[in-house]
Amino acid sequence: MKHTFSVQVENKFGVLARIAGLFAARGFNIESLAVSPTNDPSVSNMTIVVNAPDERILEQIKKQLNKLVDTIKVQDLTGENFIDRELVLVKVAVNPKTRPQILEIAQTLEAKIDEAATKDLTLEVVGDQNKIHTLLELLKPFEIKEIVRTGRIAMSRH
Amino acid sequence: MKHTFSVQVENKFGVLARIAGLFAARGFNIESLAVSPTNDPSVSNMTIVVNAPDERILEQIKKQLNKLVDTIKVQDLTGENFIDRELVLVKVAVNPKTRPQILEIAQTLEAKIDEAATKDLTLEVVGDQNKIHTLLELLKPFEIKEIVRTGRIAMSRH
Repeated sequence: MKHTFSVQVENKFGVLARIAGLFAARGFNIESLAVSPTNDPSVSNMTIVVNAPDERILEQIKKQLNKLVDTIKVQDLTGENFIDRELVLVKVAVNPKTRPQILEIAQTLEAKIDEAATKDLTLEVVGDQNKIHTLLELLKPFEIKEIVRTGRIAMSRH
Repeated sequence: MKHTFSVQVENKFGVLARIAGLFAARGFNIESLAVSPTNDPSVSNMTIVVNAPDERILEQIKKQLNKLVDTIKVQDLTGENFIDRELVLVKVAVNPKTRPQILEIAQTLEAKIDEAATKDLTLEVVGDQNKIHTLLELLKPFEIKEIVRTGRIAMSRH
């Protein structure tokens, strides 16, 4: 099952390495992770998405996350009511035949065209996991030259 | 000086911990990092922003990044022509007096209102570093209840 964590940590070097190490030591692959500063320069926020095949081990990781001296707060948002968003930049090859098809997908998903060249278009898409999934499905028949994703960020609605 | 790296790695557990460890071992604080899957399930993409007080040590880190067995490609986008984007969710406290002021900021920056409650508004903003900087400056007079950022993602324009 996929879990989404929101973790506040001290903004110090080594913290990210320690947290990534906690998951790695137990064989958990981090599907996506986004870490960046908050409005308090001493605090960073991480959103971590992991696929947890073993819930028991995940509980251990949560406990250890809470015990880290640099951890301020750990929230497991899974099952809670939260806003989830991701930003994706995707460069798609186009020709005179596929260009209108890609533009139609962009319009459907309210994507911005960040860059238009003769042979490719770069779309900027923001959405929840469903919308990003739809984007990737709709683009499957086309040639994706490059894709860069932020990974999920999340904020509790309460 | 701020450096932006785009790094393609094998999508395996432990890779993120090793890369974060490379920077941490040399006392480099990662300002932001975003890692997520690509359209090839065996490959992940990372965008890493670091403030490098010592360019010489950064060169060493780049070499070591390139030597890691799980690294596929390292690009230092600094000084290159690239698209940079970040997604920010920010929950701002509002009252009858400040609500129209926040809405004006949202309109100026083409922000979406993701959630509107009686006492707060949650804005969704996408932009380059200048725009995100402007957002944070404009919000300074107001009470930010929560902020979650993806960190920068970047794609070379070539």
